[in-house]
Amino acid sequence: METINVGLLGMGTVGTGVLRIVEAFQDDLQKQVGSPIHIGKVLVQDKSKARRYAVGAERLTEDAWEIVNDPSIDVVVEVMGGIEPAKSYILAALDQGKHIVTANKDLMALHGSEILAKAAERSCDVFYEASVAGGIPIIRTLIEGFSSDRITKIMGIVNGTTNYILTKMSQEGASYEDVLKEAQELGYAESDPTSDVEGLDAARKMAILGTLGFHTSLELADVQVKGISQVSKEDIQYGKSLGYEIKLLGIAESQDGMISVGVQPTMVKKTHPLASVGGVFNAVYVYGEAVGETMFYGPGAGEMPTATSVVADLVAVVKNLKLGVNGRKMFVPYKEKKLKTADQIASKYFVRLHVDDKAGVLAKITQVFAECDVSLESVVQQPNKAIADAEIVIVTHDASLASMNRVLAAFESLDVIQTIKSVYRVEG
Amino acid sequence: METINVGLLGMGTVGTGVLRIVEAFQDDLQKQVGSPIHIGKVLVQDKSKARRYAVGAERLTEDAWEIVNDPSIDVVVEVMGGIEPAKSYILAALDQGKHIVTANKDLMALHGSEILAKAAERSCDVFYEASVAGGIPIIRTLIEGFSSDRITKIMGIVNGTTNYILTKMSQEGASYEDVLKEAQELGYAESDPTSDVEGLDAARKMAILGTLGFHTSLELADVQVKGISQVSKEDIQYGKSLGYEIKLLGIAESQDGMISVGVQPTMVKKTHPLASVGGVFNAVYVYGEAVGETMFYGPGAGEMPTATSVVADLVAVVKNLKLGVNGRKMFVPYKEKKLKTADQIASKYFVRLHVDDKAGVLAKITQVFAECDVSLESVVQQPNKAIADAEIVIVTHDASLASMNRVLAAFESLDVIQTIKSVYRVEG
Repeated sequence: METINVGLLGMGTVGTGVLRIVEAFQDDLQKQVGSPIHIGKVLVQDKSKARRYAVGAERLTEDAWEIVNDPSIDVVVEVMGGIEPAKSYILAALDQGKHIVTANKDLMALHGSEILAKAAERSCDVFYEASVAGGIPIIRTLIEGFSSDRITKIMGIVNGTTNYILTKMSQEGASYEDVLKEAQELGYAESDPTSDVEGLDAARKMAILGTLGFHTSLELADVQVKGISQVSKEDIQYGKSLGYEIKLLGIAESQDGMISVGVQPTMVKKTHPLASVGGVFNAVYVYGEAVGETMFYGPGAGEMPTATSVVADLVAVVKNLKLGVNGRKMFVPYKEKKLKTADQIASKYFVRLHVDDKAGVLAKITQVFAECDVSLESVVQQPNKAIADAEIVIVTHDASLASMNRVLAAFESLDVIQTIKSVYRVEG
Repeated sequence: METINVGLLGMGTVGTGVLRIVEAFQDDLQKQVGSPIHIGKVLVQDKSKARRYAVGAERLTEDAWEIVNDPSIDVVVEVMGGIEPAKSYILAALDQGKHIVTANKDLMALHGSEILAKAAERSCDVFYEASVAGGIPIIRTLIEGFSSDRITKIMGIVNGTTNYILTKMSQEGASYEDVLKEAQELGYAESDPTSDVEGLDAARKMAILGTLGFHTSLELADVQVKGISQVSKEDIQYGKSLGYEIKLLGIAESQDGMISVGVQPTMVKKTHPLASVGGVFNAVYVYGEAVGETMFYGPGAGEMPTATSVVADLVAVVKNLKLGVNGRKMFVPYKEKKLKTADQIASKYFVRLHVDDKAGVLAKITQVFAECDVSLESVVQQPNKAIADAEIVIVTHDASLASMNRVLAAFESLDVIQTIKSVYRVEG
């Protein structure tokens, strides 16, 4: 019944949740792991600051090295976020033989390999369930639940801020700018929302999920990223009329050993389980050759949900400590990374065009698709009074990204097309 | 790189899937666990029978003891189903120090404690992910993913046959009898469908999920069960008009240490994520005090999905073998089982009545609810031409089961009520 001593780096939203759970659920945790779990030291930026959750001043420190170098600390929980100094603290803690639980998606997406290599060298655990999709245990699911399968597709709504914005735009017919402003006022979006709305946050999470799902080492630079700032309420309305919801989807695919990973606003068929995931919720859809379609749904952020994942990892570390099996490799990236070319990435596309309203326009446009070997599922042409010309909405059959790029390049020089209003990938 | 030798008890649907996965994905499995995994012997009822999947005759046996007593076999995978002789084989294999992977929900629901106790005594693993919800790794999720949380509610669509029937009835306005017949022809329902349609299969799975979620030892007898054979197309239509889908839900709840578990056809609000789970799919909704709402969705049965879970368990056993940590307790039932009384089980209810069409009827009926302390959310009374009297549909606010039972008892002797057509629990 030796106490497990934990150092906590960071006491923001998630750190406060970790303290709450470990302290409020202490009896349950002890019964599961057989030892008390004690958070002895907590790194904060300013010891004198008033806090929502009371922690005795003697447990607070402004010096991370007091935690990293403390020989009595068994496990370091890092919930400060960002690359540095978090990375230096974690590497130093591993050097001291401490196990790590982190919620840091930026760090794991960019430097995961280096950190896991150091952990293996020092026979230490590094767990990071909370880095993707908050309270959804998706990392465990990919590593353990689907260890037997060949995953071919992972599609995720892994950023709550953008899903909140798109859901509101869809429900209320509101503009991106108006909903973003409201989300900022409610605290669902940051004052600088770039990382969320431009898809960078989702891209980091998809690099982690793709790495785990496909047993390779994907880097952030491998992820093609497009955010939601160009999504218009018109696109959402046109999508709805055709039976789609627009979602910011991370899509990682693997066929015949060739991988693609992208994040982009996507038209999702309303019958697909991802289409009805609303508000700040996250969901990850996983397709495996053997298991088929699965989906995992839950809160993607927030104090208590994210802390649930952090503390579940802490429980796992402690169980390993009791068995003396820390440092076992949970995950082996045994497959060489081979990225698909634009010729190999295939999907359906939604294209909306503003065109001249005269004879022969549709013939010219469909001719371009035909020449680029893109066949069409549906075409709707209608006058658009607001702009005194015509509008064409096209949904293609599966086409390669390369073919679609050729179509769009040809459109640039097609005189009857006034504007390419929008292009979306289509799923479901 | 010593080969892991596996004996397979049963080569029906799931057993065939296990052979397929282990043999087709052998390279991937080896890279994960570091050893070849070989299914050396397969128990079948009749060696001479033609099979969909080719297995050399030398690997087939009609004598289970050839597997159970074979000292070269490390792991026994039991996918024959039923209580006996599966239970005897498993206990004997544990006595020989063999690890067990089973998909047997009947056995784990009825004799799980005995089997897990024997496993602990012999330092053996017993994993049973495939026993609940086929390809969805819900057992791992409850044990590991939510080890940090206090689960208060588990609601599951855990029987694909009944979900197929109810989905078809809802989509096509068809009767229970017609859809059941169709499901039997398609192989989605057995020729004797009792275990599925009367909720017994779902009850076994809920006993397992409740046990894991609430850290206690629930037995099958603790589960209140009602099947779908009395669900009428009229109920489904009335539900729809009020915004509900009828689903056979397993509902396990824990508040203040008091537990209830039941399986019953339930009106689920269309906005709830469980309402849109259609066809043979399964889904388990888990509510935790810290994490909040989560849901796990996927195929609940079938050759390859169920085999995915079996082989994932096999991978876990082999990883433990490599570390020498088999037999560790994954789960500790440390809470005393205290079942809620009918006074403590609360939910909303849907009630449909055929009544006399005369003055004062509604007053008499609502008076009964008031006397039993059940308040009402909505009341709809309308003439029903088909039966030449009136019909009343009532949705209550949260009421105890005891109060609802008092209402229904009073209705039996209320002269203006001709028939209590239906009573459903309401969720969402």
